[in-house]
Amino acid sequence: METSVEKRVKESFARQTVMATIGASITVVEPGEVTIELPFRSDLAQQHGFIHGGVVTMIVDTACGYAALTRMSASAAVLTAEYKINFLSPAEGEKLIARGRVLKPGRALTVCYGDVHAVKDGQEKLVATMLATMMTREETGLKD
Amino acid sequence: METSVEKRVKESFARQTVMATIGASITVVEPGEVTIELPFRSDLAQQHGFIHGGVVTMIVDTACGYAALTRMSASAAVLTAEYKINFLSPAEGEKLIARGRVLKPGRALTVCYGDVHAVKDGQEKLVATMLATMMTREETGLKD
Amino acid sequence: METSVEKRVKESFARQTVMATIGASITVVEPGEVTIELPFRSDLAQQHGFIHGGVVTMIVDTACGYAALTRMSASAAVLTAEYKINFLSPAEGEKLIARGRVLKPGRALTVCYGDVHAVKDGQEKLVATMLATMMTREETGLKD
Amino acid sequence: METSVEKRVKESFARQTVMATIGASITVVEPGEVTIELPFRSDLAQQHGFIHGGVVTMIVDTACGYAALTRMSASAAVLTAEYKINFLSPAEGEKLIARGRVLKPGRALTVCYGDVHAVKDGQEKLVATMLATMMTREETGLKD
Repeated sequence: METSVEKRVKESFARQTVMATIGASITVVEPGEVTIELPFRSDLAQQHGFIHGGVVTMIVDTACGYAALTRMSASAAVLTAEYKINFLSPAEGEKLIARGRVLKPGRALTVCYGDVHAVKDGQEKLVATMLATMMTREETGLKD
Repeated sequence: METSVEKRVKESFARQTVMATIGASITVVEPGEVTIELPFRSDLAQQHGFIHGGVVTMIVDTACGYAALTRMSASAAVLTAEYKINFLSPAEGEKLIARGRVLKPGRALTVCYGDVHAVKDGQEKLVATMLATMMTREETGLKD
Repeated sequence: METSVEKRVKESFARQTVMATIGASITVVEPGEVTIELPFRSDLAQQHGFIHGGVVTMIVDTACGYAALTRMSASAAVLTAEYKINFLSPAEGEKLIARGRVLKPGRALTVCYGDVHAVKDGQEKLVATMLATMMTREETGLKD
Repeated sequence: METSVEKRVKESFARQTVMATIGASITVVEPGEVTIELPFRSDLAQQHGFIHGGVVTMIVDTACGYAALTRMSASAAVLTAEYKINFLSPAEGEKLIARGRVLKPGRALTVCYGDVHAVKDGQEKLVATMLATMMTREETGLKD
């Protein structure tokens, strides 16, 4: 059964039109942890045919942001303050799996880390790792 | 007249299929500096209707990478090792302009910084700032 | 004549005991900009005899933090949320000069950038560049 | 019995004069993992009396660097290319423990992550987390 936080995250995700544009879907919403998957598509490539690092970043940014949102109050919206990402291997294979997790929740700031694995021939390989700072916005009237 | 480095960067950019997918174009290629523009599109949004931070990141990552490539040898390919980005204002308006510049070229690593401005009613507003490490790959057979 | 913000920053700096330990002094306090200088000392070195990157980081972190404080209300304290730093050249010479500047002030978060130059034979050389997020603390009872 | 890599790391650490200056010692050297400890000292403080963030950074930078060195060839020296650190709690207590670990070794670059815990009344609390890029230098004549 879907929890209220799961429902809230999925509804917010559905409003992220760029996720439909690139073909990403949200597959896991747990307290403090969110997973997003992206099947490989040739129209998401950088110059060598791998999935563009910016696309890798986008899905793990979103996974981290929603992981943070699962730990915020029901009236809060989440915004990304900043992140750093290291790219470790080319993003190639059948699909990418981005996992975002809360490391340290806080009233104003929530620190998350995330990783992205590429699945190729059934094997997962670490593609990128992120350390991110998410900001709680209570006062803005923004929804989620 | 187009220089050889400008030609090389534009050909590499044209192979980044994701740039066509999101509608980005490369507008300036100078030694050590590259500019990419992205008109606003409603299918690139995050949950509040602004352009997704990951899209903002993608265009300035590419601008920084090609800025680095302009300072590398003709046989080198460029890969993004890592970057950090801070988001300063919502990405809203008619279009985004991402500028990447080389701060410190190096044989193995080139450090770049970039910024993204949103243009709204003819005014530019700073949306994000990036500090990036680009890696030279000589030995891979990768093209640009 | 010393302004109230200059006085406040210098008093706070004087409470940073580690600054005396390493021999750093604050030389410029302007609205949105602070400079810290550190004479070379052989007991601050890493394994190759250069000043340790952590010492470089420490002075530019402090310069960025106080630059942020100059743009905060008189009742606020400043804490470093996070930063990224790239090292560009060995920290060698007679002294280091760390400059911190506010890029984007905000109510909760202030984004700063900083750089560190080494002075050798009267020439400045860029040693490191930082992008930092400073946090305003109003509620803690912490002083500056 | 001390391995050759352990001996090499400890000799290099002994040449980092700043580690003696702040009172840090290296306590664990395993393949891909290094631990450094720092007893609390009142002359290492920032303005609120906690250990300065730059000191926290310094010990985890060093732990990550030597963790990387354990995975490099015997002729290589290690230099820090860049890192990002998030501060999660005040650095207060009896001592700090910084652990650096290799996430992804590579020929030119090794990506590490590190964390720092404060020990207070026998309890460990997470103070900071780092994501770092270490660079292999083969050609410089630098020692370790």
